[in-house]
Amino acid sequence: MNDNTESGRSTDTAPGLLEALQTVLAHEIPLSEALGIRPVRYDGTELVLSAPLGPNLNHKQTAFGGSLYCAAVLAGWGLLHLFLRRRLEQDHPRTHIVIQQASIDYRHPVDADFVAVCRWPADLDDERLLRMLARRGRARAELDVYIGSDNDPAVTFSGRYVIHTGAIHSPSAP
Amino acid sequence: MNDNTESGRSTDTAPGLLEALQTVLAHEIPLSEALGIRPVRYDGTELVLSAPLGPNLNHKQTAFGGSLYCAAVLAGWGLLHLFLRRRLEQDHPRTHIVIQQASIDYRHPVDADFVAVCRWPADLDDERLLRMLARRGRARAELDVYIGSDNDPAVTFSGRYVIHTGAIHSPSAP
Repeated sequence: MNDNTESGRSTDTAPGLLEALQTVLAHEIPLSEALGIRPVRYDGTELVLSAPLGPNLNHKQTAFGGSLYCAAVLAGWGLLHLFLRRRLEQDHPRTHIVIQQASIDYRHPVDADFVAVCRWPADLDDERLLRMLARRGRARAELDVYIGSDNDPAVTFSGRYVIHTGAIHSPSAP
Repeated sequence: MNDNTESGRSTDTAPGLLEALQTVLAHEIPLSEALGIRPVRYDGTELVLSAPLGPNLNHKQTAFGGSLYCAAVLAGWGLLHLFLRRRLEQDHPRTHIVIQQASIDYRHPVDADFVAVCRWPADLDDERLLRMLARRGRARAELDVYIGSDNDPAVTFSGRYVIHTGAIHSPSAP
């Protein structure tokens, strides 16, 4: 993704996109409500989700590792969702984003409300991704997410997502 | 863990242990209730957790990848918890099990209620683990979990857990 293009394009659409993402998450991944996940910032290249500690506590009064994973995987999913929403000419009800493989490192305990941050990777060519999707009905993206602060993250996550268009994979689908 | 020893020892304690684990999960990791996680089988070397599809659905009407991760990470956690409960002479309120690193592969979508299965690894020496814990107040265990069927799992998970005793790491703790 080109920072100039993407950041410029998003300036006036970000608040609406955050609300839209909140609605999509609540509707399509109900567990995100139990986790208290909220999209709080999106500048076209970076998405920040927040989550309260309360519902995500573990036995040590810090955040449960499973909750931290969920926040991270949803930050990557949300960034791709918003990218597709902005860049595909029509709405993309048939375009699905799924997680294929992921790894996570827990570096420090999380003992307060937290944020999960996913930034579009410098080496992920957005135009190429869209071409792949149009031609093959399928494209991959490797995304990194951190929880906490950028320079000393509490958690680092790396996930391989697959985007595919239901229309091509299921030609008879309504 | 030696199958003979462990399986033999567990015969009459498994039902009570399952109930105890259920209580511990509900109390110490509240999100497990939102996920609908239930311990359903434990034979001393293998723990099976079940989860309903309903609360764990994603946008494709299959199980959300985050929910599958949570079930997997709790299966490993639960197996270690039950091991410590059985093998430490006293109760172990100060012994904590945390996840340090994990990776997960999503091989097939999960479109029904599911189970997460964690079996004590053949190469994990239970006596050595207990000795490490007693001497150093800290021990590691690498555990694999699968979701679905053993011969063609929908999800495979591998996690590195750290067990530590609060008494040694926090000598002044009450």
